[in-house]
Amino acid sequence: MSSKLIAIVAGVGAGTGAAVARKFAAAYPVVLLARNPDNFKSLAEEINSSGGKAIGISTDVSDSKSVQNAVNAIKQEFGSDVGAAVRFNIPSLETSTKSKQAAIFNASGGFTRAPFLELPEDAFTQSLAVTATGGFLFSKATLPFLLQGVKQKSQHPPSLIFTGATASLKSSAQLSSFSTGKWALRALSQSLAKEFGPQGVHVSHAIIDGVIDIPRTKEWLKDAGPDAKLSADGIANDYWYLHTQPRTNFTWELDLRPAVEKW
Amino acid sequence: MSSKLIAIVAGVGAGTGAAVARKFAAAYPVVLLARNPDNFKSLAEEINSSGGKAIGISTDVSDSKSVQNAVNAIKQEFGSDVGAAVRFNIPSLETSTKSKQAAIFNASGGFTRAPFLELPEDAFTQSLAVTATGGFLFSKATLPFLLQGVKQKSQHPPSLIFTGATASLKSSAQLSSFSTGKWALRALSQSLAKEFGPQGVHVSHAIIDGVIDIPRTKEWLKDAGPDAKLSADGIANDYWYLHTQPRTNFTWELDLRPAVEKW
Amino acid sequence: MSSKLIAIVAGVGAGTGAAVARKFAAAYPVVLLARNPDNFKSLAEEINSSGGKAIGISTDVSDSKSVQNAVNAIKQEFGSDVGAAVRFNIPSLETSTKSKQAAIFNASGGFTRAPFLELPEDAFTQSLAVTATGGFLFSKATLPFLLQGVKQKSQHPPSLIFTGATASLKSSAQLSSFSTGKWALRALSQSLAKEFGPQGVHVSHAIIDGVIDIPRTKEWLKDAGPDAKLSADGIANDYWYLHTQPRTNFTWELDLRPAVEKW
Amino acid sequence: MSSKLIAIVAGVGAGTGAAVARKFAAAYPVVLLARNPDNFKSLAEEINSSGGKAIGISTDVSDSKSVQNAVNAIKQEFGSDVGAAVRFNIPSLETSTKSKQAAIFNASGGFTRAPFLELPEDAFTQSLAVTATGGFLFSKATLPFLLQGVKQKSQHPPSLIFTGATASLKSSAQLSSFSTGKWALRALSQSLAKEFGPQGVHVSHAIIDGVIDIPRTKEWLKDAGPDAKLSADGIANDYWYLHTQPRTNFTWELDLRPAVEKW
Repeated sequence: MSSKLIAIVAGVGAGTGAAVARKFAAAYPVVLLARNPDNFKSLAEEINSSGGKAIGISTDVSDSKSVQNAVNAIKQEFGSDVGAAVRFNIPSLETSTKSKQAAIFNASGGFTRAPFLELPEDAFTQSLAVTATGGFLFSKATLPFLLQGVKQKSQHPPSLIFTGATASLKSSAQLSSFSTGKWALRALSQSLAKEFGPQGVHVSHAIIDGVIDIPRTKEWLKDAGPDAKLSADGIANDYWYLHTQPRTNFTWELDLRPAVEKW
Repeated sequence: MSSKLIAIVAGVGAGTGAAVARKFAAAYPVVLLARNPDNFKSLAEEINSSGGKAIGISTDVSDSKSVQNAVNAIKQEFGSDVGAAVRFNIPSLETSTKSKQAAIFNASGGFTRAPFLELPEDAFTQSLAVTATGGFLFSKATLPFLLQGVKQKSQHPPSLIFTGATASLKSSAQLSSFSTGKWALRALSQSLAKEFGPQGVHVSHAIIDGVIDIPRTKEWLKDAGPDAKLSADGIANDYWYLHTQPRTNFTWELDLRPAVEKW
Repeated sequence: MSSKLIAIVAGVGAGTGAAVARKFAAAYPVVLLARNPDNFKSLAEEINSSGGKAIGISTDVSDSKSVQNAVNAIKQEFGSDVGAAVRFNIPSLETSTKSKQAAIFNASGGFTRAPFLELPEDAFTQSLAVTATGGFLFSKATLPFLLQGVKQKSQHPPSLIFTGATASLKSSAQLSSFSTGKWALRALSQSLAKEFGPQGVHVSHAIIDGVIDIPRTKEWLKDAGPDAKLSADGIANDYWYLHTQPRTNFTWELDLRPAVEKW
Repeated sequence: MSSKLIAIVAGVGAGTGAAVARKFAAAYPVVLLARNPDNFKSLAEEINSSGGKAIGISTDVSDSKSVQNAVNAIKQEFGSDVGAAVRFNIPSLETSTKSKQAAIFNASGGFTRAPFLELPEDAFTQSLAVTATGGFLFSKATLPFLLQGVKQKSQHPPSLIFTGATASLKSSAQLSSFSTGKWALRALSQSLAKEFGPQGVHVSHAIIDGVIDIPRTKEWLKDAGPDAKLSADGIANDYWYLHTQPRTNFTWELDLRPAVEKW
């Protein structure tokens, strides 16, 4: 029966999403969602060629039709089955609020550091659309799979994991377009944890408090030592740990940061 | 010079917004914003006929064009002047998360208590649009007036006051459409407080933790005694207190609840 | 009947405590508590000679016998009456965690910035004794007066106000002896607010996030402009506002900081 | 070299402390601290007879001399070595704030649910002494061992883990003696995490939000189903996970609760 369980990863790219997908691919067929197929193609090939199973579906999580198409594609591929582990990731995650280099508008995510009066309306609404509405649509689309996983008595409780940031707890000057989405997403995850925990689905929120060590951040924090950035594989392990917690010991929220991080 | 200062109240209705407008009308000409003119007409007449000055402008705060029209109307009426006190209120405020009676979808606001999987996408996105995007658009439109107030050396530091709720701090099961907007609004207010405080604008966030005593809630908590609901005039006083704090002693956030409230 | 109401201020000195005592002396006879009589003598004379009434009682709030002696002295002076407003202040308040100059052990309070392994046990336990145990003993001693004030139907709900600091919310490296006491005091105030609010006593906690402008801090932040420090008289006004809130609109917690403060 | 690493568990009894000791005994010699030797004797025998190594030391963590004696005994047994994993546990943990049955004064811990004005001074100060001062003394005594572990390049970063409770975040009416200690302990752990993280020691704080399934709670929550209580072995696993996090991905705080818990 467990062959009917899948993992769904939204927001795969060259960083955390890929690390998580590789980790979970050792246990489940994985579904990779990203707007741009370039972000999942080689990863899917890599997983498929190394004994795992992965399919990629081009999806815009902020668009309900696109999300529905992804749901249909998943059902067509796997039957009306269930994702034992679902992980939500958004591109803007990779841009840490802690880095000076981050002050560039990220078209695909919604991270802008700008004086409030110069902040374009689009930057604000797009961040909300991707982070908050995207989180809502993605949760609505995948919770039925997770509840199905509960029925199938999956070995580990089905999990819905959200990725937060420093900006999920603090709302700094000039960062409102990013933090409003992140606070909304944290609220969503807490509400879902309270509603679906008693139904057997484990909803978690991880606060990433630091720069993640991925290709895009290669040049960042170079002088701060080898351990100054979060490991993407480490985050994948942390998510796996959350996924394997038993029903008696669910964690809703944990923070993650390098030992040397100032906070 | 102080005759050039105005107060802008978004979200006037029969409750808190009206109480705040009356209170601030004793000191400033007030601009009343609401989608439906029925919500400000009689209030404007009341203020104008009792020695104050009020104008109403039909405005949808979640629509940038509508907000821009309101800005233009204000400038036409008062010149390129400044709101010494601006207060942000949204209709859904009046619906407390603490009441069982609140479990009705409020088309104008975004309050829905519903199992997550039955929550319509519209309910979620409309709540975000009114609360979070509305807060953004309203802040962007009014901050230039407030900064102008700083230049004019208003007696009290120009104020931008947001109204939060219990759900700004806690995200309960089945309330995600309401709490996501409220958490986003709180994030917005904190970011603005940090950016505009040093520029002389006082940004505050009030957490209303209880049912407000307004016509709509007349039948609520009837058995809980005469003091079981928050006074709308009391909230107006609390907002006036925030507005009159000097530059040395700014409060960003306070909570407000009846003495008998359980929390 | 209202002549039977008094205000009790613990921790008067040359700063906030004195400002609060002067403010409340306009409405109530005030009782001034401090370990060293030098801290209240001239203030009591000043209040008594300007039409108010003040008595000083030498008290160590961390010593239950000393606190009981103060209670007896109050009863002897005023009968078994009631403090309408009670304000709790501790000397260490005046030492802001935000100033580099604060890195001196304050024998009377408990503020030490030191590498943890060099922190003397005394510094830690004395901070807890003064802040947490002192808060406990002071509350136990004065709550009966406050409940008596409720019975006497005082104009404003009897108030118990605690003074917190930035360190009530954040626990920085090398500041554990200060922050543990402050977190404990905040916990005490929240528990008391929940228990005694329904009984009519208003318990509040003010987070002072900045340096207070008092004689001892005269040389601090000199280059940061005239408004860079909190006004002690302003804090007295803020406490008076809290005291005058009606039963329908109680604030438990508010933060206070200069407009230019970074946070 | 790794044979020089030990684990120190304070507060062993029949519950969480024992589960943690068993778990860590698979990797390290363990030192068991409790006031009453009855609490560690059979556990030490069990560990020693099943291939592990354990010694018990009778210790009162709220008494600095007693803690120093424990340090000396550890050095005598193991040389001036290092605890790779140190876990702090206090007896009162086992008494959940969530249970009605918990309303009994626990002489060894400091848990009392009582109207504030009936709370004995001893109950308050003893809770602070065991929880806050005990946490301080225990940390001071063991951090040198942990720093020594960093020098010895232990496989996993040396860890100092504190056990919190629901009352570490919320301070309920009539529970101030418990919550003040718990808030103080949380403040201590955050300060230590910030100071010692950069030095390579991993300081964590776990919020246990529910009743732990131990002999003493056998009769509690019987009707709530088999998963209504936290598993003590599960907590031991969670602590082991924290201990094995790499330097790049440190968690300071996580919450733990049964899936069915209301929160």
